[in-house]
Amino acid sequence: MKIIHYLEAEARKYPSDQAKEATGRVVIGQSDGAEKFCMRVFEIGKGGMTGLHAHDWEHEVFVHSGKGAVRRGETWIPLSAGSVVFIQGNEEHQLKNTGDSPFVFVCVIPSGAPEL
Amino acid sequence: MKIIHYLEAEARKYPSDQAKEATGRVVIGQSDGAEKFCMRVFEIGKGGMTGLHAHDWEHEVFVHSGKGAVRRGETWIPLSAGSVVFIQGNEEHQLKNTGDSPFVFVCVIPSGAPEL
Repeated sequence: MKIIHYLEAEARKYPSDQAKEATGRVVIGQSDGAEKFCMRVFEIGKGGMTGLHAHDWEHEVFVHSGKGAVRRGETWIPLSAGSVVFIQGNEEHQLKNTGDSPFVFVCVIPSGAPEL
Repeated sequence: MKIIHYLEAEARKYPSDQAKEATGRVVIGQSDGAEKFCMRVFEIGKGGMTGLHAHDWEHEVFVHSGKGAVRRGETWIPLSAGSVVFIQGNEEHQLKNTGDSPFVFVCVIPSGAPEL
């Protein structure tokens, strides 16, 4: 059994110019023996966003804290603590911070996809 | 893309006498087209706990709010907002609320396991 606080996991800079002060952490992954799916935690700073992109694997997202939005087509849908987003494979998506504090969310992906 | 607040998902009573005022919600599951893993959100009331049990599938847990603990062997390890727990398949486990407010956590399981 692995028990940590997510802040103990190594923070890596999110690879996007738009993602201000953004970090990603693999909190449960292949190196822990997690063979089927991988849990990451992302923090996006004030004014930041992820890149608009799509890929063939799905995302299961849970918003932990802060305020943000997710882009669905041409519309931005507001998100806050307790929001849940299921992004299917090949579905275009983008998340952004719309508040003053970090926007923190969990994002689970299947094994085989890049962990970060 | 499915976007909800976890409180919008149907709450089912957690099937344990020890789990006071406890509920479980499937927030992303097979009915949404999630074919590889399933996200649930659990709330355990003050003084409540899950049953001590083991099964052959893994859990990836993220603590959203409240205070609690997870049993690892004979020891209870404290958990709070932002804690992460990876419970391997066949590993005995139990979670409890050690605070005054609901203990709320996300728990992801592989497809094939009972969603609730």
